[in-house]
Amino acid sequence: MFNREVYQNRRRILLEKMADKAQEGKRGIAIFTGNVEAPQNYRGNDYKFRQESSFLYYWGIDEPGFAAILDLDNGEEAIYGNDVDIDDIIWMGPQPSVQSKAEKAGVHRSAPAADFDNEVRKAVSQGRPVHFLPTSRYYNTMKVSSLLGIPAEDVRKVAPVSCGKASEELVRAIISMRLIKEPCEISEIDKACEIGYLMHTAARQGCKPGTPEQEIVGRMEGVTISRGWGVSFTTILSQHGETLHNHSHNMTITPGNLLLVDAGAESNTHYASDFTRTYPCSGRFTQRQRDIYDIVENCNELAFKLCRPGTTYRDIHIAVAKNMLEGLKSLDIVRGDVDSMAAEGIAGLFMPHGLGHNMGIDVHDMEDLGENLVGYDDDQKRSSQLGLGSLRMARRLHPGHVITDEPGIYFIPALIAKWKEDGTDKGFVNYQKLEAYNDFGGIRLEDDILITEDGARHLGPHRLPIKADDVENAMAGE
Amino acid sequence: MFNREVYQNRRRILLEKMADKAQEGKRGIAIFTGNVEAPQNYRGNDYKFRQESSFLYYWGIDEPGFAAILDLDNGEEAIYGNDVDIDDIIWMGPQPSVQSKAEKAGVHRSAPAADFDNEVRKAVSQGRPVHFLPTSRYYNTMKVSSLLGIPAEDVRKVAPVSCGKASEELVRAIISMRLIKEPCEISEIDKACEIGYLMHTAARQGCKPGTPEQEIVGRMEGVTISRGWGVSFTTILSQHGETLHNHSHNMTITPGNLLLVDAGAESNTHYASDFTRTYPCSGRFTQRQRDIYDIVENCNELAFKLCRPGTTYRDIHIAVAKNMLEGLKSLDIVRGDVDSMAAEGIAGLFMPHGLGHNMGIDVHDMEDLGENLVGYDDDQKRSSQLGLGSLRMARRLHPGHVITDEPGIYFIPALIAKWKEDGTDKGFVNYQKLEAYNDFGGIRLEDDILITEDGARHLGPHRLPIKADDVENAMAGE
Repeated sequence: MFNREVYQNRRRILLEKMADKAQEGKRGIAIFTGNVEAPQNYRGNDYKFRQESSFLYYWGIDEPGFAAILDLDNGEEAIYGNDVDIDDIIWMGPQPSVQSKAEKAGVHRSAPAADFDNEVRKAVSQGRPVHFLPTSRYYNTMKVSSLLGIPAEDVRKVAPVSCGKASEELVRAIISMRLIKEPCEISEIDKACEIGYLMHTAARQGCKPGTPEQEIVGRMEGVTISRGWGVSFTTILSQHGETLHNHSHNMTITPGNLLLVDAGAESNTHYASDFTRTYPCSGRFTQRQRDIYDIVENCNELAFKLCRPGTTYRDIHIAVAKNMLEGLKSLDIVRGDVDSMAAEGIAGLFMPHGLGHNMGIDVHDMEDLGENLVGYDDDQKRSSQLGLGSLRMARRLHPGHVITDEPGIYFIPALIAKWKEDGTDKGFVNYQKLEAYNDFGGIRLEDDILITEDGARHLGPHRLPIKADDVENAMAGE
Repeated sequence: MFNREVYQNRRRILLEKMADKAQEGKRGIAIFTGNVEAPQNYRGNDYKFRQESSFLYYWGIDEPGFAAILDLDNGEEAIYGNDVDIDDIIWMGPQPSVQSKAEKAGVHRSAPAADFDNEVRKAVSQGRPVHFLPTSRYYNTMKVSSLLGIPAEDVRKVAPVSCGKASEELVRAIISMRLIKEPCEISEIDKACEIGYLMHTAARQGCKPGTPEQEIVGRMEGVTISRGWGVSFTTILSQHGETLHNHSHNMTITPGNLLLVDAGAESNTHYASDFTRTYPCSGRFTQRQRDIYDIVENCNELAFKLCRPGTTYRDIHIAVAKNMLEGLKSLDIVRGDVDSMAAEGIAGLFMPHGLGHNMGIDVHDMEDLGENLVGYDDDQKRSSQLGLGSLRMARRLHPGHVITDEPGIYFIPALIAKWKEDGTDKGFVNYQKLEAYNDFGGIRLEDDILITEDGARHLGPHRLPIKADDVENAMAGE
C-alpha cells in the first residue's frame, strides 16, 4: 500500500473529473465494489485473493469484502467492511479495525458492509445517479444487479450513466488517470519487471534437452511467489509457440525445437510485468530459426526506437508490420510491393495479434473497462484486419504510458491453409516456400516500455538478453 | 484422466443408486455443470482453471465450458460443449473434437453447449425432476437459477428434489461413492502426498534464521507446480501458528519462534494432499516447546493407532482430546478430572478445530455438498462444543476412507482472555500457568491416512519426520 496521500490525491482528481458543472447537485454517487474471495473447487477453498484493480487504485485496501462510495455532489467518502469477531480471530488472527484500515487510505468514515447496500438503495430510491464500473467477477455482477434492480447483463455494459448501465463517465475518468503512471507506480512496475527478469532467467537456465516443460514452469513460478504476489497471468511456456496462448506444459525439451516463454510477475502491490523470449532448445539457433528470429528481434528494436510522445502506437504497429514483411520478403516467403501487402493486412497471417497493450495494475491494463475506451483515442477507429484488429493499444503516446512491445512471427498451419483456400493473401504469399515452415512453430519477443518526456525506456533494472548471439552465449554459459 | 471404463463404471453405479423403484418412469434427469474460467482481475485474465470436482469424477473432462446430463429414466448420457473455430485455433491451438473428448469418458453422445440449456428447459417444461448439485461458483449458480427459474439462494440449498433445490438424493448418492476411494484414486493421492512430502522438505530446509517467509513459500509452491497442478489450498506458513489459517508471509524466520507449515499439493489429476509440520526456527526446540510438541505428536500417533474400520472418527477425536488434556494436566495448565473436563469440552480452548476431514479430489472432500452430509452418518449429531463442533469427519470408518489426522495445540490470547472472562473453563484451567504461554504460538501435526481392511496406513511413499528428535536431526543436517 502506498502512503495515504497517494489515494487522497487520486480521489480528489477523480472528483474533479466527475464534477460536471451542468449536473451540479445531481451528480449522484460513484460506488466501488471490492472483490470477495473466489471459490477454486468449493467455497472455503479459494483462489489466492486478488483485489479489484480500480478499488485498489483509489482505496488501497487489499482484502476481501470491502466496498466504497464517493459522493460526487458533496465529496464525502466512506469505506464499508466488517470488523472481526472471536471466530475470525481464531481462524484469521487479530485484525486492525475497518476504521484504521480506512484511515490508512486517508478515508475518515467507515461503516459495516451492510450499510453500503443501504446507501446504494437509498440513492436509487432518491433518483440519484449511481455510477459503477463494469464488473468482472460474477459475484459483483449479481450484487450490483440486485442493488440497482437492473439486469445482470447491463452491469457489464458501458453507457452514459443515465442509461442504467456501467457509467461511461466514470470509466473515462478512471482510464484517463490510470493510463498515466505515477512515479510510485513506475517504481512498482520496475520491481515487477525485475521479478520477471529473474523468472525468465530461470526459464532460460532450465531450457535443456530432456527437461519436462512443467518443471521449468514450477521453477519460474516459484521465483514469482518468493518475491511477489505471483504470476501476472498464466504462464505460456511451449514448444508450440505458434499457438499464441498455449497453457499446456506436458512436453519435454527437445533439441531442434524453439521454446517460447511468455510470462510475467505481479509485485506484492499488484503491479505487473510481462516478457516474452524464445529459446533454441539445443542452445543454438539453426540458420532457418535465426533468419526468422532476427526479423522479430529487429521489429522489437524498431518499435522501441519509434516510441516517443506524439506518435500513435497504431502507427508503430503498422511500421513494424511493414518491417516484418520486408524481412519475410527477403526470405521469399512473401512477394510483391511491401506497401501494398501491408495495406492488405498480409502481416496478420504471420502476426495475428497487436504489437502491444497497456500494462499497470492489470497486465492488460483496465481490460475490464473496455478495450476500445482504454486503448483508442476518440479519433481512432479499430481496424477489422487480422492482427491490427487485435491491437489493444493504439493511442497517441504520452509520458507515463506503460506498454508492451511484442512483435512475433508464427507459422500456424490451419491459418495458412485457410488463407490459401480463401485467397485471403491476394497473391502476395509464396505458399511453396511458406508451407515448408509448417513445422517451425513461432517466435515472440516482448519487452515492457515506459514512455518518457523525450522517448522511452525499458522497464526493470535489467533487460533479458534478446539478440540471437547474446541468447546463445547466455545459454552456453549455463 | 483415467481410462474410460472408470467413468463408465461410476456413472453406471450412480444410475443404480438413483434408480428409485417407486419413481420409475418419472425419475427425471441429473445435470452436471462443469466450471468455466474464473476471472482473476479481469475477464480474460483468469485464475488457473479448476474443474468442478464431481464433474471431473463422473465425466473426466478437465476443460472449461462443458456440461453433462444423465437421464435417470432411460440411462442416456450426453456431454455438451463447443468445438473450436479458427480464432480458437490461433489462440489455443488445434483441439480434439468435443465428440472425441466425450468418447474418452466413454460417452457416445455429444452436442453443442446451447443444447444443454435447451434439454434442461425441456425437462422443466415437461415437469420432469431435474437433479442438480449445489454450486460453488457464482457463474454456475446464476446459470442453474436461470435455467430452472428458481432463486439463486435455492441453488445452494440441499433438499429432496421435489423442493426445487439442490437434490439431496443426488448429493447422497455421490457422497456414498466419492467417500470410498478406488485403487486408481489412492494411487493418485499417493502421488499428491509425495509432492507434499517434497514441498514440506523444501520448507524445512528453508527454515533458517533470517530467511523471509515469502521466500520459503515460493520454493514450496514451485515444487508443486513443477510436479503437479499446484497447491491444494493456500499455503499456511507462519510464526503465528496460533492463528489457524494465517495467510500472511511477511515475517523473517526468527530464532526462538516456531514455524507452522500447513500445505499440500494437488496432483495433475487433481487429487489432494495436506500435511502440517511445526519447526523450531533455531533448529532445536526449547524445553517448553518440546513439552507441547510431544503432546501433539503423541496425539497424532494415538489417532493413527485407533484408526480402523468400525470405529467412528468422532470417538477418535474425543480420545485424542482426552489424551491432550492428560498431557496439559501433566504441565499443570489444566487441573482436575480429565473425563469431566473432556465432557465439558475444555480441549476446545487448546484445539478449537476438529481432528481431521475427508480428503480426495477436494482437500476438504466434497465440502460443497454439505459438511454434515459428507462427514456425519445418519445416526450422528454434530456437537455444539468448540473444537468437536468443528469436526468435519465424524463417520464410522470404512476401508477406502481417506482422512487427515491433525491434532494441534494453540495458545490464542484473545480466546484465553474470553474464556477467563466468561468462566467457560468451569474452573479446570490454571490461568496463572496458561497465561505464560500467551507468546507461545501454536503447534499442529498432520498426516494423511487411508483406512484399510484391518487398520490404516499413511499415504505417500515417504513420511515427513515428525518425532521431535527426528525433526531436529533432519534440520541439523540441512
